Amino acid sequence: MKQIAVLGLGVVGRGVADLFRENAATVAARCGEEVVLKYALDIRDMPDSPYANLLVRSIDPILADPEVSVVAEVMGGLHPAYEYTRACLDAGKSVVTSNKELVATYGVELLALAREKGVYYLFEASTGGAIPVIAPIVRDLAANEVTGISGILNGTTNYILTRMFRAGASFEAALTEAQQKGYAERNPAADIEGIDACRKICILSASATGILPDPARVHTEGITAIRQKDVRIAEKNGYTLKLLGKMEKKPWGTFVLVSPFFVKRTDPLSSVEDVFNGIKVSCNYAGEVMFYGRGAGSHPTASAVAADIVSVVRGDAKRQTWTLGEEDYPTDFRLYRTRHYLALSGVEQNAVTVIWEDAEILGSDGEELAVLTPEISEQELEDSLARLSSLGARLQSHIRVSVE
Amino acid sequence: MKQIAVLGLGVVGRGVADLFRENAATVAARCGEEVVLKYALDIRDMPDSPYANLLVRSIDPILADPEVSVVAEVMGGLHPAYEYTRACLDAGKSVVTSNKELVATYGVELLALAREKGVYYLFEASTGGAIPVIAPIVRDLAANEVTGISGILNGTTNYILTRMFRAGASFEAALTEAQQKGYAERNPAADIEGIDACRKICILSASATGILPDPARVHTEGITAIRQKDVRIAEKNGYTLKLLGKMEKKPWGTFVLVSPFFVKRTDPLSSVEDVFNGIKVSCNYAGEVMFYGRGAGSHPTASAVAADIVSVVRGDAKRQTWTLGEEDYPTDFRLYRTRHYLALSGVEQNAVTVIWEDAEILGSDGEELAVLTPEISEQELEDSLARLSSLGARLQSHIRVSVE
Repeated sequence: MKQIAVLGLGVVGRGVADLFRENAATVAARCGEEVVLKYALDIRDMPDSPYANLLVRSIDPILADPEVSVVAEVMGGLHPAYEYTRACLDAGKSVVTSNKELVATYGVELLALAREKGVYYLFEASTGGAIPVIAPIVRDLAANEVTGISGILNGTTNYILTRMFRAGASFEAALTEAQQKGYAERNPAADIEGIDACRKICILSASATGILPDPARVHTEGITAIRQKDVRIAEKNGYTLKLLGKMEKKPWGTFVLVSPFFVKRTDPLSSVEDVFNGIKVSCNYAGEVMFYGRGAGSHPTASAVAADIVSVVRGDAKRQTWTLGEEDYPTDFRLYRTRHYLALSGVEQNAVTVIWEDAEILGSDGEELAVLTPEISEQELEDSLARLSSLGARLQSHIRVSVE
Repeated sequence: MKQIAVLGLGVVGRGVADLFRENAATVAARCGEEVVLKYALDIRDMPDSPYANLLVRSIDPILADPEVSVVAEVMGGLHPAYEYTRACLDAGKSVVTSNKELVATYGVELLALAREKGVYYLFEASTGGAIPVIAPIVRDLAANEVTGISGILNGTTNYILTRMFRAGASFEAALTEAQQKGYAERNPAADIEGIDACRKICILSASATGILPDPARVHTEGITAIRQKDVRIAEKNGYTLKLLGKMEKKPWGTFVLVSPFFVKRTDPLSSVEDVFNGIKVSCNYAGEVMFYGRGAGSHPTASAVAADIVSVVRGDAKRQTWTLGEEDYPTDFRLYRTRHYLALSGVEQNAVTVIWEDAEILGSDGEELAVLTPEISEQELEDSLARLSSLGARLQSHIRVSVE
């Protein structure tokens, strides 16, 4: 019998506790032994919780108990999750987590500590919720060069964008609806500004390449500026709108970014709707592989946490080694190349086609000219927008176009 | 350094050889040691092959060479693949394969032999081509009860159906086109009759439950009877048409079948087009998870073969144990319940609604009445069709409807 502890009995922690109770027989069959939850750390009183008898208010009894071999850190936030994780690893316990902020910030150090101690630090649940994606990248695509990752990594923003498409809602109305349904937090900044997606693409990128990008150096744009008008133009032209986290390896550099994108209807990511997540991984042998499922929620996230626990118990977990990206990693964003949707007012079509001969003019509503640029670098975009501005053009909207 | 052999230097074998040459550095980094192809077994002369110097015409030198620890069987067919696989396992060598016919037929026995010998028998490449799906089911979804699998498992038929939708082609014209493009074989029976998909759903089902259904007891229908008219009716009513392999665990039994299905446009499987495969796995905690990618081809299949080889070399492979389904497994197909699309001639609408009060009448073109039945058992369907026949109705088309 293996005994485990869960740090944090919130939404995810409760799901983990439920799973090891409800699926106990399945887990025992798959592991060859029972896996039992012994402690649940939480500072809140939970007299009505079915796990009240497991509650402890301090990490100490968990650290001191040699019978606990795996700890699930599902508290979220950097502190005290960081200190607790270090303490558990130091005590020779494997740690599995759903904490993307911690992994994206301290992943290099915590992985090194786990290796030093001969235990595991695993984080399948940190990215893509229920979706097996980190383990498949690390294990099942290991014989490939991963040349790109493109993912819908945040369910809240995907729900908002889906409502803007399907129900014609404004960004504000869709956000309010997401909050009412419990999909968005009262302070939704981490989601709608792209911060959550940024952490996740950093984790995926590191899992594919071994190099963790510094999230602070990743170009990150959210979805707050997207207008209903942009949604309609995308739709009319065979695109949908998605917030994507991307890693692209090109001959001129490796790029990591988070930005809203026009996504072609023929791209499998375009049919990932509502709160679902989808992650497309491009490989030199496997080609494009996509993983799809629930990106959040108590039971889905618990499934991924439990997968890591099971792999530790069975002894088939895979230990990653990461290094931290240097100052030139990811490559300077000004060299990133893609197409761009621009909505411009105060300018004639020929001013645009003078700059980009092969620009695709999507149309004009009398006020704004909608344009798709050819594939250009961010530097070229900036320079050209300055030129257009000097001609009196005003940029009303700008969204990148996914060009795979 | 680990040395490997490949049995069969056809399309897949050549891809495997290419991968271990082209991605040698990646593989070495991921495995912690080099993995080198030492032998390629093929009875054909291949003087122009870059692997001509590795060619052997007999399995004996491979069996006799203690340096070869992993063998990739990518010959296809039952014989001599079965004998070679047994001989390799007996000689203490792990075997990885893309041979779905062999796995679906002798999987139970070969897995037991591998376990007895302390080696591995792995077959990620047998199902879903490049898509990591067997390993994710066995490892990453291990803490879940898998309650269902629904998959587009055959690229040839999916290409044909996509062309029937997109280009308005007849079945025959789409098949000819698939043959011209090299997607369908000259004798396409195994694909278009659903036999290939049947083998694959048996393998997936066994990977999820531990019980291998006897393919001969799996209800298997192909796509040869699908008419352009059916395609248009599906499209008009918000469905697409897919050949699905399904495993469904219900309180009244476990069902395994292969059949064309009407698939709702909102189902993520509906956007799996052309030669791509998609496999949806329903789990009691993870919810619905879908895996998508290239289901065939030299390099994609090689990616999956190589993933298994890498896992053996790294020592994190997972050994499955299967038993063979008894006579009542899968459950008697007459108890399977779903909705059905029927095209009936020689009958009035009220004769249909007398039988199924809540049948959905899709319309009539003057000759045929198109109907969606409520969810009924196959037995009820058979009985009702007999009643309709006695009233003079003739069944022009019958396609199941996926009801998740």
